Amino acid sequence: MKEYIEANKNRFLEELFSLLRIPSVSSLEEHKPDMLRCAERLVELLKEAGADHAEVYPTSGHPVVYASRIIDPSLSTVLVYGHYDVQPVDPVELWNSDPFQPEIRDGAIYARGANDDKGQLFMHVKAFEYLQKTGRLRHNVKFILEGEEEIGSPSLAEWASGHKDLLKADIILVSDTTMISEQVPSINCGMRGLSYLEIKVTGPDKDLHSGHYGGAVANPVNVLCDMISSLIDGDGRITVKGFYDDVVELSAEDRAKLARAPFDLEEYKKFLKIAEVKGEKGYTTLERTGIRPCLDVNGIWGGYTGEGAKTVLPSEAHAKISMRLVPDQDSEKITELVEKHILSIAPPYVRVEVKRHHGGNGFLIPISSPAYQAASRAMTEVYGVEPVPSRGGGSIPILADLQKILGIDPLLMGFGLERDTIHSPNESYLLSQFFKGIEAIILFYRYY
Amino acid sequence: MKEYIEANKNRFLEELFSLLRIPSVSSLEEHKPDMLRCAERLVELLKEAGADHAEVYPTSGHPVVYASRIIDPSLSTVLVYGHYDVQPVDPVELWNSDPFQPEIRDGAIYARGANDDKGQLFMHVKAFEYLQKTGRLRHNVKFILEGEEEIGSPSLAEWASGHKDLLKADIILVSDTTMISEQVPSINCGMRGLSYLEIKVTGPDKDLHSGHYGGAVANPVNVLCDMISSLIDGDGRITVKGFYDDVVELSAEDRAKLARAPFDLEEYKKFLKIAEVKGEKGYTTLERTGIRPCLDVNGIWGGYTGEGAKTVLPSEAHAKISMRLVPDQDSEKITELVEKHILSIAPPYVRVEVKRHHGGNGFLIPISSPAYQAASRAMTEVYGVEPVPSRGGGSIPILADLQKILGIDPLLMGFGLERDTIHSPNESYLLSQFFKGIEAIILFYRYY
Repeated sequence: MKEYIEANKNRFLEELFSLLRIPSVSSLEEHKPDMLRCAERLVELLKEAGADHAEVYPTSGHPVVYASRIIDPSLSTVLVYGHYDVQPVDPVELWNSDPFQPEIRDGAIYARGANDDKGQLFMHVKAFEYLQKTGRLRHNVKFILEGEEEIGSPSLAEWASGHKDLLKADIILVSDTTMISEQVPSINCGMRGLSYLEIKVTGPDKDLHSGHYGGAVANPVNVLCDMISSLIDGDGRITVKGFYDDVVELSAEDRAKLARAPFDLEEYKKFLKIAEVKGEKGYTTLERTGIRPCLDVNGIWGGYTGEGAKTVLPSEAHAKISMRLVPDQDSEKITELVEKHILSIAPPYVRVEVKRHHGGNGFLIPISSPAYQAASRAMTEVYGVEPVPSRGGGSIPILADLQKILGIDPLLMGFGLERDTIHSPNESYLLSQFFKGIEAIILFYRYY
Repeated sequence: MKEYIEANKNRFLEELFSLLRIPSVSSLEEHKPDMLRCAERLVELLKEAGADHAEVYPTSGHPVVYASRIIDPSLSTVLVYGHYDVQPVDPVELWNSDPFQPEIRDGAIYARGANDDKGQLFMHVKAFEYLQKTGRLRHNVKFILEGEEEIGSPSLAEWASGHKDLLKADIILVSDTTMISEQVPSINCGMRGLSYLEIKVTGPDKDLHSGHYGGAVANPVNVLCDMISSLIDGDGRITVKGFYDDVVELSAEDRAKLARAPFDLEEYKKFLKIAEVKGEKGYTTLERTGIRPCLDVNGIWGGYTGEGAKTVLPSEAHAKISMRLVPDQDSEKITELVEKHILSIAPPYVRVEVKRHHGGNGFLIPISSPAYQAASRAMTEVYGVEPVPSRGGGSIPILADLQKILGIDPLLMGFGLERDTIHSPNESYLLSQFFKGIEAIILFYRYY
């Protein structure tokens, strides 16, 4: 394996660079032709790597690339998810080299998409090539590569719903996340789900002069603040009855495993420029974002928000509120619970309406599952350290959708590092991570 | 008196109509020439009525009209305040006649400004004419008529500060408010003051993904809601220490007088389309807006406020908050108290900044004062009922400024009625109120 990679490394990089040179910025209209170009180049590369089927599928947005090699329908199938679209490059003047002319400096590839996600998805293409070319392929392999991850994957769920048979698999394998550090590999085995509600509080049917009516007529903004404030108690727990019913308490052993992740609270606070963290009593910061649900106001508005002062008693107040859920919580059930709760605490002097936004369930791959075990063994072999089972907050929303639509768990085996500054200028990806990633993925197939 | 009015009524109306025909909409740039035209027409009418000095004074905004007749500096002086600017007429298609072509229908004048405030200020001009022409003037009379009341009087305070000597007087007499009803005259003897603060809560230095950080990093919108919610307790009382120190409790007798105002709570709720009123425990609705202070959020914003859902944990949250104060509360003192309180309750996991906006003290003319007594006697004579001493919420902000700058109390003897729908299409003013108002003002001078 190492020999094959060593012998072909320059070609691997040249192929990757051919992808990186295409400015596939999904959010900018002017790059629409580049999206198709990038999808077509992926089809070429997948075919060269050994796919017996590889095709660009149009969607209502940017195209989807699907490729597969089915060697025996009775064998298990790995579905690789990735995305070929990239973030914009502004402020482009802060780049030390052209974002679309990849360069190798100090052992790293510098380019937009070097890591996120062209670099990471391409490791899967090359691991597949190795297995295929050396006759070691023991699984059916499918690739689903979208061009809209950076803009919220507006088309993939619909496309997947229409191609369920095509996408049938046993595991969704993804490299689009980071490891804790170069020395501490980690596997993201769970992500939180989402419930999302919008609240509208209406008081009087028109804006009033606060001088005339203030003190006698309920102010919908004050009422909304009261309602929101009552949703979380002094211990940071959500007060909605039944909210925690399906939240599984982790065993001391599992919590100890999570706690192995090296986490520097002071660095964390410094990075966010906050003096203190805040969250549910009795849990660490990593637990609060990994294994506990939470409630956040994502947006609030009402009354006069311009310059200066206006003494208005507003007619309406609005808030967007979302809950992050742990995998055992059902998004629809929680949405309904919280909606009912909000309506039940609505005081008689205002009218409260609740609108539901799109939510989704979280997921969790048990550490005992064959896929997790295979990934863990593979990474241990490559890094010499057993990976930490981490829990991501909710980084790739489409994965929860795909899991729901296809009924397949995703496993997040990411090789990025914080230093790669994805989404920012001078995005990079360490060559060592690129090649170790290919090795780890090959070993995953060996142990899965 | 009645004979004089009867004999001249058609001329009075024709003169008023000449003002109403000028579209002096202060908020619309295209009416700038009309503002000057209207001011100049007022100067003519004031001179014809007997002013020995009447002049248009430029300001940085629309001009001010000042006029006076000084008969004897040792006599007391009445300063009449009014405004000649009007609200826009949109939606103009809902008017039954041209807003700037006054018409008399069913005993009322229909035109923009018929009541607010051309109709009401003109009663003062005609009362002055009567006193002057019939040799009954026993006071010095001054008029200060501005052209910016409907846009918040941005220039008058500065102009008044520069003309304190010119404006010296014993009472500011104003007709720019409503009576309780045609059968129940009222005199507005107090208005609440104002403290106004803007709060900014900053959490992390950038917007965060709520999936990654939610539950572990304080959300500034949630924190702001908590802070706002804590400012008012379950009894509707403001929790800021010392806030009520200078609030004078009215005697049972004074409360009984206030309670004479016929007030229909069901009508009030119906008008505002609310199911329940809400306010400080132990006080009626009229007391809550008249003799008690209050706190309102005038505007709130933070995070994502567009269409749909975004899972952002915002970096900032903002609110504009104002307190209505009773006359014994000092606006600056309260502003400082509340600012300190807000900073003191700021939790360590966010940064809280407070910005002060312009505030002002309330005022209260004692029922026992000569001016109130004169007005009360005058209205009793005209309406056959003793007027109710009401307290307005804070309708004419410039009056508190004028009181502060000039050190003179304002007395609000308004003759408008709810039916007049000022600021809306088909503004009107009952002829009976116009002529009774002239009588009552003449009698005010007799008894003052």
